[in-house]
Amino acid sequence: MQDLLRPLRDAFDMPSGVIYLDGNSLGALPKTTAARVAEVVTQEWGQGLIRSWNSANWFTLPQRLGDKIARLIGADAGEVVATDSTSINLYKVLSSALSIAAQDAPLRKQVLSERSNFPTDLYMAQALCQERGFELRLIDADALAGALNDQVAVLMLTHVNYRTGAMHDMAAVTAAAHAAGVLTVWDLAHSAGAVPVALKADDADFAIGCGYKYLNGGPGAPAFVWVHPRHSERFWQPLAGWWGHATPFEFTPDYRPAPGITRYLCGTQPMLSLAALECGLDVFASAQAMGGMAALRAKSLALTDLFIALVEQRCSGHGLGLATPREHTQRGSQVCLTRSEGAYAMVQALIARGVIGDFRAGDGHEQPDILRFGFTPLYLGFEEVWNAVEQLRQVLDTQEWKLPAFTQKQAVT
Amino acid sequence: MQDLLRPLRDAFDMPSGVIYLDGNSLGALPKTTAARVAEVVTQEWGQGLIRSWNSANWFTLPQRLGDKIARLIGADAGEVVATDSTSINLYKVLSSALSIAAQDAPLRKQVLSERSNFPTDLYMAQALCQERGFELRLIDADALAGALNDQVAVLMLTHVNYRTGAMHDMAAVTAAAHAAGVLTVWDLAHSAGAVPVALKADDADFAIGCGYKYLNGGPGAPAFVWVHPRHSERFWQPLAGWWGHATPFEFTPDYRPAPGITRYLCGTQPMLSLAALECGLDVFASAQAMGGMAALRAKSLALTDLFIALVEQRCSGHGLGLATPREHTQRGSQVCLTRSEGAYAMVQALIARGVIGDFRAGDGHEQPDILRFGFTPLYLGFEEVWNAVEQLRQVLDTQEWKLPAFTQKQAVT
Repeated sequence: MQDLLRPLRDAFDMPSGVIYLDGNSLGALPKTTAARVAEVVTQEWGQGLIRSWNSANWFTLPQRLGDKIARLIGADAGEVVATDSTSINLYKVLSSALSIAAQDAPLRKQVLSERSNFPTDLYMAQALCQERGFELRLIDADALAGALNDQVAVLMLTHVNYRTGAMHDMAAVTAAAHAAGVLTVWDLAHSAGAVPVALKADDADFAIGCGYKYLNGGPGAPAFVWVHPRHSERFWQPLAGWWGHATPFEFTPDYRPAPGITRYLCGTQPMLSLAALECGLDVFASAQAMGGMAALRAKSLALTDLFIALVEQRCSGHGLGLATPREHTQRGSQVCLTRSEGAYAMVQALIARGVIGDFRAGDGHEQPDILRFGFTPLYLGFEEVWNAVEQLRQVLDTQEWKLPAFTQKQAVT
Repeated sequence: MQDLLRPLRDAFDMPSGVIYLDGNSLGALPKTTAARVAEVVTQEWGQGLIRSWNSANWFTLPQRLGDKIARLIGADAGEVVATDSTSINLYKVLSSALSIAAQDAPLRKQVLSERSNFPTDLYMAQALCQERGFELRLIDADALAGALNDQVAVLMLTHVNYRTGAMHDMAAVTAAAHAAGVLTVWDLAHSAGAVPVALKADDADFAIGCGYKYLNGGPGAPAFVWVHPRHSERFWQPLAGWWGHATPFEFTPDYRPAPGITRYLCGTQPMLSLAALECGLDVFASAQAMGGMAALRAKSLALTDLFIALVEQRCSGHGLGLATPREHTQRGSQVCLTRSEGAYAMVQALIARGVIGDFRAGDGHEQPDILRFGFTPLYLGFEEVWNAVEQLRQVLDTQEWKLPAFTQKQAVT
């Protein structure tokens, strides 16, 4: 298979001897990042000092990065800001969604989400629902269609499931939600930069996402927030700090929200981390000439197809199951294998061999333990998929994973 | 005057030809920062990748930096975390304070603050008060004592005023508040690293502060939050994300807050910016051997005394007033001059001469326009104070500030 995106790998620094299948947790380092961050530290901060807020355009960086993110998620310029953390941004958009619901459909008192949604989303929703007199109702994904009734104010979903890699059909789910009078909040943590997203075309209402996974912004990089223009000026979000003020440098005692998405900013943003995020986003600009997200998606599916096929061919008889959907339309950019025991140790044994994936514990009941592998089409090659499966085969065939060094649990990410 | 702290200046990179009197807005660059940030980017992120969450101890960085900040503000280890922005942290602590008030004193429905408090604090309080059914009441500082009555739930103050540099007596104000049954929330943005702060000794209830001013953490560096241990486990704060969960990596759908201050964390933190903040904090560890905050305070007062005296000697007859208290006990680490017209242009003319201060507009009524000068005892010398005043004298005597290049307004910080 010819890999037309192969040149993009050269945009990243990758440690030797590593096959990195964890870009869905922390993306790899773009080659431009170190120099750019050094420039921000030594020149813009060190030499420019306070003057750089204007001369280096620090003030508008959240909006400028937002415009770059917008292209990856089917939004328009001026609709996205890069800021704060995913959790904080979820609080902002869910709060706005609840305010809209309280005004437009005051009898609807449920926020609907998936039981297997990423927990921090559920935690944030739990606190906000309690505050506002809403009920957070958790269901399984297959019960979704039947649960959209006139009790539900907001449907809050993560587009690609963090455990299984299963992907919702955003257009269909949004249409069903709207038909039932329900607003949609989408978490794009495992989608942005990984799969094509079309927020405007699919008519979503609110979205948030992560800067440090497929966007390669660096550890804890600022997250992003998008609000459909039909909603963006209807309410204040409660984290109404000075960066979201219409005229922050008039220092007026009363809050007056800025027009559009800028009101979703709150306090001063971490410039070093934002500057690093920009380098990650600029790799996608290079990818644009090679077919952009459509080409990345085609390669991602080819990588995950190959991984699934090779695991099934070469690792059979070892009790591995597949948690990730085979159907392309339902798959994100990761593959999750299940095993009733030993999944943690197998991941540790693979990491010791330089194949970095991660482990996600099951709940001891319905959810099995998971070996999770992310496939980042920007920097992964097909030969690495082959080699990763070969390492997995050896770990299984030799039963190396049963060594105490691998079975003993450490702090996990 | 012998400056025993002079060696600390060598811990900073400072542009040549600049006298930096704006460290109260953005602190200067410590010499160790560039190398440390480069190490985090290229080694910890680039080579370590996801493994660095454990191997480089990223997970506990908010707590470790919190312990370093605790020493500067009279708190104990384990009571502070470095995280998010000042505005976001204010939301967390004010929310907790209102929850406590709602339980312990349900008839108290006022949050009391100063009209001249930093606006973002007022904006955050405004949104939260509206959400919770409280009233935000703004008064002038001199009306404070009389306003502490049985209607007030929380007194929210910035310790050192951002415009005038006036400092509250934290011990006395807190005692008066407690005597009236009122909880205290202190914003230490212009105090931490600038003046001695004794949160525990003064019996404060909640505090937040800024990482990028006197702590020299870099543009938009993460902020910090402290909660007195008697309150820290009483309630959840509403920004209840996974980093504040008791067992985040069990990925349970229900939120269970971590013990102590860790529950004031929310989402994943920007590691590059946190790493830079640590370099700023480590300069204070060096200062410890030279007398620590007490020595820094003595130098700060000497610097601001000298500046006031020289301005009054050498710039008289130009209509300058003094907004900053002369009494040491009421002064932070900045000096603010007032002028009925031309303040903006004078600051611009000074900046063109390499003397960097900043301008803060008045309200056109009671509050005058301000020329604001911050004095950072870590890196400022007495000769710079002399030279800065000499530049100001020349700007005034020559009327250079009336040049169109200086009178024309640009975006301001």
